[in-house]
Amino acid sequence: MADTMLNHRSIRKYKPDAVEPDILHSILNAAMRASNTGNMQAYSIIVTRDPDIRHQLWEAHFKQEMVLEAPVHLTFCADFNRFSKWCMLRNADPGYDNFLSFLTGAIDALLASQNAALAAEEEGLGICYLGTATWMAARMIEILKLPRLVVPVIAIVMGYPDETPPLMDRLPLTGVVHKEVYRDYDETSINAVYQDKESLQETLDLLKLNGKQTLAQIFTDNRYTRRDNRFFSRAFLEVLEKQGFMVNQD
Amino acid sequence: MADTMLNHRSIRKYKPDAVEPDILHSILNAAMRASNTGNMQAYSIIVTRDPDIRHQLWEAHFKQEMVLEAPVHLTFCADFNRFSKWCMLRNADPGYDNFLSFLTGAIDALLASQNAALAAEEEGLGICYLGTATWMAARMIEILKLPRLVVPVIAIVMGYPDETPPLMDRLPLTGVVHKEVYRDYDETSINAVYQDKESLQETLDLLKLNGKQTLAQIFTDNRYTRRDNRFFSRAFLEVLEKQGFMVNQD
Repeated sequence: MADTMLNHRSIRKYKPDAVEPDILHSILNAAMRASNTGNMQAYSIIVTRDPDIRHQLWEAHFKQEMVLEAPVHLTFCADFNRFSKWCMLRNADPGYDNFLSFLTGAIDALLASQNAALAAEEEGLGICYLGTATWMAARMIEILKLPRLVVPVIAIVMGYPDETPPLMDRLPLTGVVHKEVYRDYDETSINAVYQDKESLQETLDLLKLNGKQTLAQIFTDNRYTRRDNRFFSRAFLEVLEKQGFMVNQD
Repeated sequence: MADTMLNHRSIRKYKPDAVEPDILHSILNAAMRASNTGNMQAYSIIVTRDPDIRHQLWEAHFKQEMVLEAPVHLTFCADFNRFSKWCMLRNADPGYDNFLSFLTGAIDALLASQNAALAAEEEGLGICYLGTATWMAARMIEILKLPRLVVPVIAIVMGYPDETPPLMDRLPLTGVVHKEVYRDYDETSINAVYQDKESLQETLDLLKLNGKQTLAQIFTDNRYTRRDNRFFSRAFLEVLEKQGFMVNQD
């Protein structure tokens, strides 16, 4: 497993080969064994293989080609619908229509998703996480028919890889890990943390291609802009309200 | 790894043995290889071993004994402080003081945490997740000196196990996994999903001990009450505001 984790690459090109049901079953079973809050399992996993529904998901995921190519699309949702329905049928009063419960379900869903991702990679499959599942949560809810108290948190596509991308760079461990308490960054430590990333040939090529002075500008101006972040923040908070997770709080 | 995932148990009793630095290093390294959003690595990991600080954390975590016992306490935080500081030093305008960016950092932090948990278990260590890291986020921020745009999402304690608890039950796979789209639950399917859990000897013992009619009531009345959920929802939303994640949205 250590090797699986150390060799993780996001795969964006897939062969058309189907994922056999028993392999998919063992991946989902591994997902279910992840830690979760109070053993409530406040999440659901939606397995979508149908080409028509995947076509709709592809449109929602900003038409990223891999969503059409990969034979399996998993959506991990925070889910207090199942648990609340159980409570109501058992003469118990569920109080899970609030932000903390969304967060609880999101934590459970994300830990399960990482088990699924690793189990898939151990089976020789490739995976790619799709953050667009939250950006486009309202559309996912329509396509996947998610009821009240169910909100998508992350999606994964999986299938057999048709590419072997290089390992992505990471910041140095000391740039992300803090000893005992948080040590805030100053100009010297920021320079040290980002120095290697900024010197990569890939970075220099990107600067040229985008006509930018710094890599940071490519993030703030092109990839993760203030305007998009504002727009999708509002959209997601509206989804939380619409799905009933902002009702019952002081 | 599949075995590691299938055999996961949360460990709540620990031997005093320290975790060697090279083992801890490989665990943190595995955490860093997890998928993350746009390779921004919008998270930080705080490694706390100092007994005095762990004593403060123990108080914050509702005085759960394992926090005192386990030699290592990891806090996984959504972190756009580092990234934003980098942007500002590189003539780029960071727009990450919003809810979507918190969610992005939380996703990154949680995927990294599950890698850390599994890598630790592969090394023969035991772990336990602590959801109280979000419930008590304001106190964690004080103890760990977290600056603006840094919010704790989850904590893990780890160390060498001093118990061998049984595997926890899980809902049947068909109770959590949906095919193609979400199939909402009705009384029949809820009964089928919870039947095994409700028949466990452990459940029957709990009902007797707590003087309750149903297992669901133990959750709604004792463990995860509406009142607590309301209180901690408000507290966490206040933390998001205080830490600067609710500023810049429409």
